[in-house]
Amino acid sequence: MRISELSAETGVPVATIKYYLRERLLPEGERTSATQAVYGRTHVERLRLIRALVDSGVGIASARQVIGALDDPPEDPGHLLGIAHAAVSPPADGDLDLTAARNLIRRWGWEPEACAPQQVAGVARALDSIERGGFAVPEATMDAYLAGIRQMVEAEIDAIPTTSAEDAVRYVVLGTVLVEPLLLALRRVAEELVSSGRFGGGDT
Amino acid sequence: MRISELSAETGVPVATIKYYLRERLLPEGERTSATQAVYGRTHVERLRLIRALVDSGVGIASARQVIGALDDPPEDPGHLLGIAHAAVSPPADGDLDLTAARNLIRRWGWEPEACAPQQVAGVARALDSIERGGFAVPEATMDAYLAGIRQMVEAEIDAIPTTSAEDAVRYVVLGTVLVEPLLLALRRVAEELVSSGRFGGGDT
Repeated sequence: MRISELSAETGVPVATIKYYLRERLLPEGERTSATQAVYGRTHVERLRLIRALVDSGVGIASARQVIGALDDPPEDPGHLLGIAHAAVSPPADGDLDLTAARNLIRRWGWEPEACAPQQVAGVARALDSIERGGFAVPEATMDAYLAGIRQMVEAEIDAIPTTSAEDAVRYVVLGTVLVEPLLLALRRVAEELVSSGRFGGGDT
Repeated sequence: MRISELSAETGVPVATIKYYLRERLLPEGERTSATQAVYGRTHVERLRLIRALVDSGVGIASARQVIGALDDPPEDPGHLLGIAHAAVSPPADGDLDLTAARNLIRRWGWEPEACAPQQVAGVARALDSIERGGFAVPEATMDAYLAGIRQMVEAEIDAIPTTSAEDAVRYVVLGTVLVEPLLLALRRVAEELVSSGRFGGGDT
């Protein structure tokens, strides 16, 4: 297909596609003349992945890292998913005390060193803001968080498509970022309904 | 204690305390002269609650609603917690299709009508942005979300203090808002560690 058709198929404007070509996020099409090239399904798939990354707030440099890992895949797919994950997570800042975050990860039975530093930092930052807000999560609640999240994530990982590395990475990026607001909204619904069930009410 | 001591105890500047007094979020102190008043523990508690609300992004009007409900409590405490919940959630917008959100809540065994409209709208908005992002949560994953969240929320509700209505409302407000980033950060850690466990890797 021509670049205009690629644009129609994916909803990405031609100028943006040309930008991705210049930035080498999207591989060149097959040249048919000095000014024309044709594009195929791989370009459609790649464009969808780039949009998923960009819409998730990932910068061009991080997107290029993910794309680079797809074009020159590491030996194990777990590493590839780790790169995708890292791309959608904010970088770690140096000053955080990671002790409490590491202990939480150990309570799950995992080694914190097996996890990207920025993910551990994300937990540390969240724990820090809870403490500064004058709140404390009781032990029993924390254990329920760890158990509940593990259960949800096992199901998520079960559902990662094995059709291609591109599909798997796109699934991880979209599934991580797009689903977050849903989980928070469902939690608020459950909080309201469980608490009105316990304390009476129910018409609130 | 004097207003300066109340300020020192709570970390809230005197000018801000005066603003809350004028806005009737904080009850008047006991007058000791034309220009002086003394404040007690109830003022400290109330100020902490106001800060919890304001720091959660709640506007003065919504904060006043929560405070009003505390001063003139509804007959059942479930209703009070519902008001606190509603205050920290964005208002519903009219144009959303709520069908899918209602069906999800029914899958939990609850009636969507038992829940504040803005909470149902929150779920609808999240489902909408997932769809627009070109993602679909598989049925089995959604069931795991519902089960996992329910498990977490049951533990949260178990931990609500029963010492006073003020304590309970403050706990609900802080526990809802402050814990959200922690849950998201823990999910990302679990996603990375479960996926590297499944697909190999582990040093990503």
